[in-house]
Amino acid sequence: MELNIRKANPSDMKSVIELIKELAIFEKQPDAVVTTEQILIEDGFGKNPAFNVLLAEIKNEIIGMALFYPRYSTWKGKALHLEDLIVKHEYRGKGVGTVLYRKVMEYAFENDLKRVAWEVLDWNTVAIDFYKSTGAEVFDEWRVSQMGEEALNKYLEKI
Amino acid sequence: MELNIRKANPSDMKSVIELIKELAIFEKQPDAVVTTEQILIEDGFGKNPAFNVLLAEIKNEIIGMALFYPRYSTWKGKALHLEDLIVKHEYRGKGVGTVLYRKVMEYAFENDLKRVAWEVLDWNTVAIDFYKSTGAEVFDEWRVSQMGEEALNKYLEKI
Repeated sequence: MELNIRKANPSDMKSVIELIKELAIFEKQPDAVVTTEQILIEDGFGKNPAFNVLLAEIKNEIIGMALFYPRYSTWKGKALHLEDLIVKHEYRGKGVGTVLYRKVMEYAFENDLKRVAWEVLDWNTVAIDFYKSTGAEVFDEWRVSQMGEEALNKYLEKI
Repeated sequence: MELNIRKANPSDMKSVIELIKELAIFEKQPDAVVTTEQILIEDGFGKNPAFNVLLAEIKNEIIGMALFYPRYSTWKGKALHLEDLIVKHEYRGKGVGTVLYRKVMEYAFENDLKRVAWEVLDWNTVAIDFYKSTGAEVFDEWRVSQMGEEALNKYLEKI
């Protein structure tokens, strides 16, 4: 099996949204995805693209993806956020995720970024062990906090 | 005391780096800051600004700041990351942070962003209680993971 890694085109967003939905099921939130193929095309390939996507392919079948975008660390400087690293269920355990992960790290190195950050579920010990094995840190004391759209509207008394 | 909120200029980065260092001390990592006034000017006010800063002033003294930049949720769409929300020690507990926080939320609303995200230390219960009181969620099961510059170079065998 020859693995090909390439940048995504707008026409790949159909496969990308399917992978995103597969990850949402794995993360036990199947109904949380409100984005669509069309929204990804608009947001990722317009004038100011909101993200980059690398795809993993075998024989022209898209079997994995890494989606990332710039962040900023006030302590370290320009950084990268790895939002999603997804490999299709039937292709897991074959090193595809490792290849994508390494490509993202190479992208960060080549662009002189000072840090790559991402989030992982605490029960996903396979992923956590992998990240640690690469030299990454997984922090215990930081908590992710979010204000979603509905809560935001409520807070600002817009609804 | 009249509180003024305004966008930051390059000439404000001297005050901003001081606030960033004050936060690093509060977060028990005083030596972690490697950015400088000059780096913030370059990264925040060049061709593709990496972040936005809102400042809180009283009588022309900068007493607080919110630093934020775009993110992307593959589930929800365009989002915002609030990297730092800092109020000078001697001005805390007077509602300055609340005003800055609300301004960031208003910015997200006005720009049709679908989510605002940030990170908080688990022992900072005062902040956590405040966030929750505004309708934000603080997640227990997500862990922040990072690959720093040195670890990145080591992983890619560049050093």
